[in-house]
Amino acid sequence: MLATSADELGLDVDAELVLKLEQLQVTGSFKPRGAFNLLLSRDDDGRGVVAASGGNFGLAVAHAATTLGVQAAIFVPATSPAEKIDRLRNLGADVHVIDGFYDAALAASREHATATDAFQAHAYDQFEVVAGQGTCGAEFEDQTGQLDTVLVAVGGGGLIGGVASWFEPTGTRVIGIETEGCPTLHAAHRAGEPVQVEVGGLCASSLGARQIGDICWAVSEQGAIADSFLVSDDDVRIAQQRLWDRCRLVAEPGGAAALAALTSGTYVPAPGERVGVIVCGANTDPAAVVV
Amino acid sequence: MLATSADELGLDVDAELVLKLEQLQVTGSFKPRGAFNLLLSRDDDGRGVVAASGGNFGLAVAHAATTLGVQAAIFVPATSPAEKIDRLRNLGADVHVIDGFYDAALAASREHATATDAFQAHAYDQFEVVAGQGTCGAEFEDQTGQLDTVLVAVGGGGLIGGVASWFEPTGTRVIGIETEGCPTLHAAHRAGEPVQVEVGGLCASSLGARQIGDICWAVSEQGAIADSFLVSDDDVRIAQQRLWDRCRLVAEPGGAAALAALTSGTYVPAPGERVGVIVCGANTDPAAVVV
Repeated sequence: MLATSADELGLDVDAELVLKLEQLQVTGSFKPRGAFNLLLSRDDDGRGVVAASGGNFGLAVAHAATTLGVQAAIFVPATSPAEKIDRLRNLGADVHVIDGFYDAALAASREHATATDAFQAHAYDQFEVVAGQGTCGAEFEDQTGQLDTVLVAVGGGGLIGGVASWFEPTGTRVIGIETEGCPTLHAAHRAGEPVQVEVGGLCASSLGARQIGDICWAVSEQGAIADSFLVSDDDVRIAQQRLWDRCRLVAEPGGAAALAALTSGTYVPAPGERVGVIVCGANTDPAAVVV
Repeated sequence: MLATSADELGLDVDAELVLKLEQLQVTGSFKPRGAFNLLLSRDDDGRGVVAASGGNFGLAVAHAATTLGVQAAIFVPATSPAEKIDRLRNLGADVHVIDGFYDAALAASREHATATDAFQAHAYDQFEVVAGQGTCGAEFEDQTGQLDTVLVAVGGGGLIGGVASWFEPTGTRVIGIETEGCPTLHAAHRAGEPVQVEVGGLCASSLGARQIGDICWAVSEQGAIADSFLVSDDDVRIAQQRLWDRCRLVAEPGGAAALAALTSGTYVPAPGERVGVIVCGANTDPAAVVV
């Protein structure tokens, strides 16, 4: 789904803006694209799928698995909010709550996969997942025609890896946007290779991968990602507020990060430029979007 | 804009649902349709337009007038929240804050219209306004094809009057939905003529007309409105919550009233029925949509 424009968003730029409203997808983020593609690409012979995620990827895998009649085991750390655990259960997943933090849930999910022969889904560094997220780029171009630039928030690089792969032959420039607290792609561009980063701040729960995924990095090395920019947490809060005030849309912090590059003036379009922005998630308390 | 489906909304009905997301229109409701049509239908010779409204119609007139270069004087009662008054000013309107309640603001707006020769816009009982709202029906059909039924929230009847006029020759049934606290159309159907009603409850600020408009009543008398149903305030709250939980959409109470007829089981579609629902406004505190 789409919305326009620079004027409606109160941006003083001579550019044409189009928003891709991925936060309105089922489960509240773009992630079912990758989850469906993964499950549809594998021959499920009753072994099921396993994932470690208390967030958007877990919801997406649970939804896709239930829809396709695949058994899903989702491992979440005990630190996850009860509301999220309930939501996973309501989507039909077999939810395992593991003492400790994410790393403990991930380790338990791997043990489960080995013991049961279920296949392990990865949130951003699995070919079928990245390819599935790429359908967002294909659909965006189909809906809106040729874009000069597409701004995409980056966590582990699943979304931008797929979207940049789609746009690479088209001449559309794809630019990654991260917060200062979650700079995996920016840090890799600086270091010339994927490096571990400290994760923190407002977007940690959705964009907070420790290191850019290998698949995304390979896409970037082939020149498909034109640039990357950092925005502040305050920039993101202002973008969330702008989406509500001007468009009556709610986005979670990571979901508004790409737009924040425009509303903060971090990315300034050229006159007449056609800029696409992916609004990628809305799994937040709606009260939190109003400053 | 559109969204589907019965399944996504968690409704246990064998029907196809399509939502028309009018709350995503500029200014957060369907009302700019009528405001633009009114201003474009009149030859503004510098006299300007005047309206009494601290709500969605005021925002729509202010926005349409500024866009078209027409002077807009908006009269609001002093009881209006400062935030709404600021929003009207930010849209470029000349805002007059009048001591007392809505009736005082309306009286002052009429004096202003007489004194300045500005033309008075009416929120729902003016031909050009109702015709403008009717474009919502035309667009809905254009986007989604033939519908069996369209559910529309009713206040003074501007939206349903226009929408029912559009659908009357097409065979699509248009049904009015009101809350028990704002039953203008239901009371008129019972009495056989427009009657004054007591106004109260959750939807009073958006659906709370005292009496159904004459234009809407004439449309109803011609048989273009198939039926009307009442829902409770609790039904509306549950529909708001459902829109957020399932679709990550925020609607104000009046904006979710038509959907509430489905989520409450007040209106039960026949098997295979194609039902359109107009979600008509989102000017609310997003925190208020979560129970």
